[in-house]
Amino acid sequence: MTITLTVFDRSPDGGRGLARDTRVRWALEEVGQPYEVRPVTFEDMKQPDHLDRNPFGQIPTYEEDGLVLFESGSILLHIAGKAPGLLPEDPQARARAITWVFAAVNTVEPPILELQNAKLIEGDKPWAGDRLPMVLDRIRKRLRELSVHLEDADWLDGPFSAGDLMMVSVLQRLKPSGLLDEYPNLAAYVARGEARPAYQRAFADQYAFNNR
Amino acid sequence: MTITLTVFDRSPDGGRGLARDTRVRWALEEVGQPYEVRPVTFEDMKQPDHLDRNPFGQIPTYEEDGLVLFESGSILLHIAGKAPGLLPEDPQARARAITWVFAAVNTVEPPILELQNAKLIEGDKPWAGDRLPMVLDRIRKRLRELSVHLEDADWLDGPFSAGDLMMVSVLQRLKPSGLLDEYPNLAAYVARGEARPAYQRAFADQYAFNNR
Repeated sequence: MTITLTVFDRSPDGGRGLARDTRVRWALEEVGQPYEVRPVTFEDMKQPDHLDRNPFGQIPTYEEDGLVLFESGSILLHIAGKAPGLLPEDPQARARAITWVFAAVNTVEPPILELQNAKLIEGDKPWAGDRLPMVLDRIRKRLRELSVHLEDADWLDGPFSAGDLMMVSVLQRLKPSGLLDEYPNLAAYVARGEARPAYQRAFADQYAFNNR
Repeated sequence: MTITLTVFDRSPDGGRGLARDTRVRWALEEVGQPYEVRPVTFEDMKQPDHLDRNPFGQIPTYEEDGLVLFESGSILLHIAGKAPGLLPEDPQARARAITWVFAAVNTVEPPILELQNAKLIEGDKPWAGDRLPMVLDRIRKRLRELSVHLEDADWLDGPFSAGDLMMVSVLQRLKPSGLLDEYPNLAAYVARGEARPAYQRAFADQYAFNNR
């Protein structure tokens, strides 16, 4: 069985690990599953071949044995369901880990995406400067709540899980803003995720690919 | 086993069904699972009791037999995992249905939440009028892609699933904007979801509760 991910032919971040294929590569490394990548250009992403894989034209997509998935959260749960290492065996702990995957993508990530829009799409608009503090404060609210929950724990709920993989991946997007440094336990949490050998391998592979 | 959801003591929408407990009530009705509700005020939601259930202080939360979950997407998958009716038995179809749950909350919902912010939080700012068309166009992009995928099918991928339940619930938030009417197949899709007896019961219950 071959697993194939679509990835950016050249990631806009130049391989800093912020494209969403990195989180899927990381998950595959955590469970020791080899995979191949199929690069797509921005033009490719608008073509029927890619829209058949993902109607929203985004990367990554995941192909395995006739199955085609998109959405990094869904791909993560699929990988986690097939092999040990990303979700606890205990059903209640497993459900809580899945809760953290959703908290990452539906509660913490939306205001972070909005910051990217504010900078990349609206950065030259007359309101950009006055509006930015509001956008940042919406992120700070979530970071404060997450920081209070985490306290001095290593991970969000017991051992490292898919929930941590996704939360760390979402928080990494804040690095250029410096916001993460306002919450030292969250900055340390992200560093802890990045120190995992599986993350290191995933990062190195996507970096090499984007700088080939 | 008793299932308890936290819900708004008085939903800001007065019971129009747009609060996130409605999607969970709907899921429980689809699988025929009775439940109780525990109302919380906005003040309650900031207290330790509620933050222990959900560190981000939101509703709904789900309690069952010592298990506490938050995030409507996670609660939906938990309910769907315990009883037939919301996820296909076939593993590949099941993984694809879960993909649609994530597409709803992580690709379609974020620009819709941003419209709510633009109106509720930034509606009185000097940039509100000039910025609104950009916010609407980001939503239209996703609606166009979703509309092209759906074509004239009843549901997103074969029979009704948790993916449809979540997508319909997310699209409902657009009703006040009128945007949904620009995509007749999506408006019909939402109406199809709302016509389901399980949705009708869920809506009636939350309406009665918010108007008690």
